[in-house]
Formats: sequence, C-alpha cells, structure tokens
Amino acid sequence: MAEAETPNRSPEIRKDKIHNRWILFSPARSRRPSDFKAKSNPQPNNQTECPFCAGHEHECAPEIFRVPADSTNDWKIRVIQNLYPAVSRELDFQNPVSLVGDVAVSGFGFHDVVIESPVHSVNLSDLSPAQVGEVLLACKKRIEQLRSCDSIKYVQVFKNHGASAGASMSHSHSQMIALPIVPPTVSARLDSMMEYYKQTGKCSLCDIQPNELLIAESAHFISLVPFAATFAFEIWIIPRDHSSHFHEIDSEKAVDLGGLLKLMLLKMSLQLNNPPFNLLIHSSPYQDDPSNAPSTHWFLQIAPHLSGVGGFEIATGCYINPVFPEDAAKILRDVRISNNNI
Amino acid sequence: MAEAETPNRSPEIRKDKIHNRWILFSPARSRRPSDFKAKSNPQPNNQTECPFCAGHEHECAPEIFRVPADSTNDWKIRVIQNLYPAVSRELDFQNPVSLVGDVAVSGFGFHDVVIESPVHSVNLSDLSPAQVGEVLLACKKRIEQLRSCDSIKYVQVFKNHGASAGASMSHSHSQMIALPIVPPTVSARLDSMMEYYKQTGKCSLCDIQPNELLIAESAHFISLVPFAATFAFEIWIIPRDHSSHFHEIDSEKAVDLGGLLKLMLLKMSLQLNNPPFNLLIHSSPYQDDPSNAPSTHWFLQIAPHLSGVGGFEIATGCYINPVFPEDAAKILRDVRISNNNI
Repeated sequence: MAEAETPNRSPEIRKDKIHNRWILFSPARSRRPSDFKAKSNPQPNNQTECPFCAGHEHECAPEIFRVPADSTNDWKIRVIQNLYPAVSRELDFQNPVSLVGDVAVSGFGFHDVVIESPVHSVNLSDLSPAQVGEVLLACKKRIEQLRSCDSIKYVQVFKNHGASAGASMSHSHSQMIALPIVPPTVSARLDSMMEYYKQTGKCSLCDIQPNELLIAESAHFISLVPFAATFAFEIWIIPRDHSSHFHEIDSEKAVDLGGLLKLMLLKMSLQLNNPPFNLLIHSSPYQDDPSNAPSTHWFLQIAPHLSGVGGFEIATGCYINPVFPEDAAKILRDVRISNNNI
Repeated sequence: MAEAETPNRSPEIRKDKIHNRWILFSPARSRRPSDFKAKSNPQPNNQTECPFCAGHEHECAPEIFRVPADSTNDWKIRVIQNLYPAVSRELDFQNPVSLVGDVAVSGFGFHDVVIESPVHSVNLSDLSPAQVGEVLLACKKRIEQLRSCDSIKYVQVFKNHGASAGASMSHSHSQMIALPIVPPTVSARLDSMMEYYKQTGKCSLCDIQPNELLIAESAHFISLVPFAATFAFEIWIIPRDHSSHFHEIDSEKAVDLGGLLKLMLLKMSLQLNNPPFNLLIHSSPYQDDPSNAPSTHWFLQIAPHLSGVGGFEIATGCYINPVFPEDAAKILRDVRISNNNI
C-alpha cells in the first residue's frame, strides 16, 4: 500500500528517565503519523476586547517592567502582574507545620504575565530570533528579581497557546508562577536525574544521544523528540553546555535559542495545523542543594495538544502516545520552512 | 451585594495527603462558585454509526462476556476487547532489564471496554441503582479474570464522558487497562497512605472526618469533596469499611454504591450542566505487599472538566482549583434530585 509510510508497529512501553515515568506508545492503526493535525484551535478572545494590546495598558494589572525600559507607547515587551493570580503576593507565607492531617498554607506567591508583542495578531513564531531572545531575557530578568524573595523556592515559566491548552487570552503571552514550594513534578525530575548521575557519573541530558530523534541544532542548543515523549510530536530544546538554571542564559545564547525555538514553532505549526500547545521551561529550584548541580540540566519543552487528556492519564500518571518519537522526529526534520520566515 | 454568596477568600495552598501533592485554591473573583457550568459538552459520535448499540455487535472487537451470561439480543452489559487497544494482549512481557539508559518493554497488557447499556442514549446515571451495581460487578468480574495473568500488576478502571474528557464514543461505556507495571501515580498514592499510617497508626481514608465536606451517605459508602480537591466540584465516594481492593466488593455493596454513584452523577449533571467528566476507580495492585494492607483503601473519584489543563499543571504537577471544596460540597449537598430520578 502506498499509504503506509511506516510498517505496523507493536505497542511499546518506554521509560522517561528524566521524569521517572512510563509512556505507552500505541500506534493509531487507522492513521499514519503524518496525518496527525489539530482539528481546530479556537482562540479565546478577539482584538476588540484585548487589554494586552498597545493603548490598553490601563486595563491591565500593574506593570513590573517593560522592554525597552524607557519606552512609552513603543514598547516591545511588557511584564505585568496577572489580574487573576493563582497565588497572591499580598499574603505572608508560613511553612506548613505538619505533614499529617489536613495541611493548608496561605497561597503566597507571584503570578506574572509576559506580553510578548504590542500587536494582537503577532505570534511568538512571527518574531525574529533576536526578538524571541528578548522575550527569553525578559523572563530571565523577572526570575532574577523574584530571587530576592527568600520564601520563593521555584519559578515555573509557561506559555498556553489556544483555548484547549489553557489560554484565556489569544494575544501572545507567557506566564510565570513563583511558588513557596518545590512542585512535585520538579522534585521527581531532580530525583530521577540524580539517580542517573549516581549510576553513571554523568548528567542525563549531557549524555543524551539524539541520533534518529534529532530535529535540528544551533550553536548552543539541540532540538529533538524525546525517546519517551509524553505527547505526540513533543519537542525538547536542550542547551549543549551543562547548566542547572534557565536564568544562567546570556544574551548570545538567548538569541541563538530564539532562532531554534522559532524554527521549532514554525515546523510544528505547519505540520500540525497550528495546534494548541504549551511551552514549558524546566529549570531548578533557586536554593537547590549544591550536590544536585552536576545532575540537573534545564531544558525547554513544547507540548502540542492533539488529543485530550482522559481518565487513564489522570488516574495513573501514564500517558498514551499514538506516535513513535522516531517517526515524529523524521516528519519534523523534513518540514521545510522558507528562509523568508526565518 | 446580593450577588456574593461567599466572602472574597484569599488563595490557599492545600496538601492532598492521599496523593502527596499540592493544590492551589484561587477563588475566581469574577465568578461565584454556583456560577460554574460546563460551556458545552460536544459528544464524539452519533447513533447512526455506533458499534456499541444492540444489533451492531459484529462491528466490535471480540466479546469477553455479557450480562446476563445466557442472553442473546437482550443483553444488558457487554464486556469486549478494545478495537484500538493502548496495550496488546498478543505480546510477551519482559521485565525491563536496566533502569539506566533508554528502557523500553513490549506494550503487553489488556484494554477492555464495558458497554453499560444496549441503548445509545442511556447514560450511566439513567440506570437504576441495581443496574449501576451490575456494571460495577461486571468490572469486578473482569478484574478477577485478569488476576490469573501473572504479569499483570494493576488494573485501572476509568470512564471518559464527553469528547474533552477523552471519550471517542458517546455510547455510555467504561474502560479497563491492565498493566504489567504499577503506574507512578498509584505508587505515589500507596507510599503516601503508608506514610500517614506510619505516623498515625491509622488508614488515612478510615480516619477522614468529612464534616462540612460531606455530600451524602449510604449504608456502606460516604461521598464528599476532598479537602484538597484537584478539580472544581470533584467528588470522592469512599467505602466506610476498610478495603484495599475494589474487586472485594460484594453484590449488596455494589447496589448500595450504585445508588450513591447515580445520585452524585445526577447532582453533578444538574448543577454543572452535564459537564464532561472522568470516573476513576483507585484500587491497589494485585500482588500488593501485605504490609500495605492496613494503609491502602480503595475509592472512586468523579472529576468534572470545567476548565482545560494548562502548561502550569503539566510542568509542575500542581493543579489550580478555583472553587474551595467547602463551597462545592455545600452546593452539591443542596442540589435537589426528584425521587422520580432515583
């Protein structure tokens, strides 16, 4: 059959050694990997009511800083407070006193928004590599500011694109939540990477051999589909040099990463029909145990949402991925992006 | 303001001591808890093409058993193989040989479907308590059959209702995936319950004091909103008597549970406008360490999907819940269901 790009494959259970979890790979027998497309990606709001657009700054929660710092109406990036924060900067944090019985602490923390462009219709992938780099440097700057607050243990940077990926605004933006706890998935990741280091003497991400999983490379980063990808067509971008914290990035590397991130977003959008997605920066806690430094390595994850998360995933923490990572990597490698777009 | 049912509350971070994870409670300041409704719940397919309807049995994967066992066209429940299984019963299972490096094992396991009614438009909550009990007993029977396979460690029973909760068929059905591994979320739950037992000498679910979180009670079960609910309006149904495995349930208790489950589904559907939801049975592994028996206690979880899961939840494992459990429990307690429906 001319239809069959890949032979029928048997299901496989793979271990994600970074997160210490299992992924079930079950090729959808009725579809070829190249047929996966987002069905639709409804956008949550339109321009007429968008407070993130230039000229509507007064409709937003207070600004923290803007880029360039001395700009007026011609700003390029604004970092602002979230109008409906998940955590509150106005509370005092108390450490939980006991792990037995019902434990509740005040919801202290910071929840900020990075508006990535003054123009409503501009996506992150429409920006130049240098401009994407500036967005990344704005995140770095805010993370460094939050470091001065002793109670904050971890900052999660994330971007939700499309309503079904959690976005409530369609104007391109990222978010940061600074927490007084180290979240459970972060702890599990650090523990798992430490375990690998203890057994091999190497950092698990320095030691990665992308081979057929490689999508592209830049001077300082590689992009690949992870061996045990949680989501179909998931992409990781990993710094070549060992580094525990995203906020250690410098301007040169930020522009380099900006170019590779832009390329990955363009390839994904073209191949999968502008799918809803999450972009996540996986870093380390501020006051990380120094003995963790050799085993922790930050990276960036792009997770397209091609199917919803169901009860099995919620109950077990095992994800079902219908596309083998080798197939996804080949397809993404082969997507051609015109130089005009780069 | 007459609008305000509850005073403005500050965000709170609560520990889910059963799963050992943190939930951020951030009251949506623009909405009252009673205003939460599902926006829409698109159904994935319609009756004209439904292989689960009576008369279309030949379009399905092989049947495992039916209820009643000797029925022909007048069956009430069918347990069948999944036509597109996430795991395959035809593979051999090999134990993973190493935890370092890339680990992959064959995707061995069983993926079955429980068709809960021969009629397309009948929901689980439309059945009588005795009929819901029969569905539960069909799950119990299949779990007991799967026990004879030594390689199977855990069986997850789950129901996806509505496309955005992961359902690909709208005809009422549940699914079971039998796995050769103990899934990570299950291990974490067992460890956390054991920790509570070590510290207190009690089972964490036997020790629960529902108070203002109680929704309803039956002879053998209680239903409540958990103190650190992951999802808005999440419901747990817990057996009063200590029991590690769901498949220990007997006929009398199954009918009793059927009545309480039906009541909870009716209340949720009426209050939240027939939302997409998952129904999960949290049990223990087959060959569980006997020392775990005093600390493990099975329960049933109903998780409505009122908002999508975004990047923050995927990255951190922390969930954001906009409705305080006490408010959700009061609202669900107060929903009146006509006796005609019970």
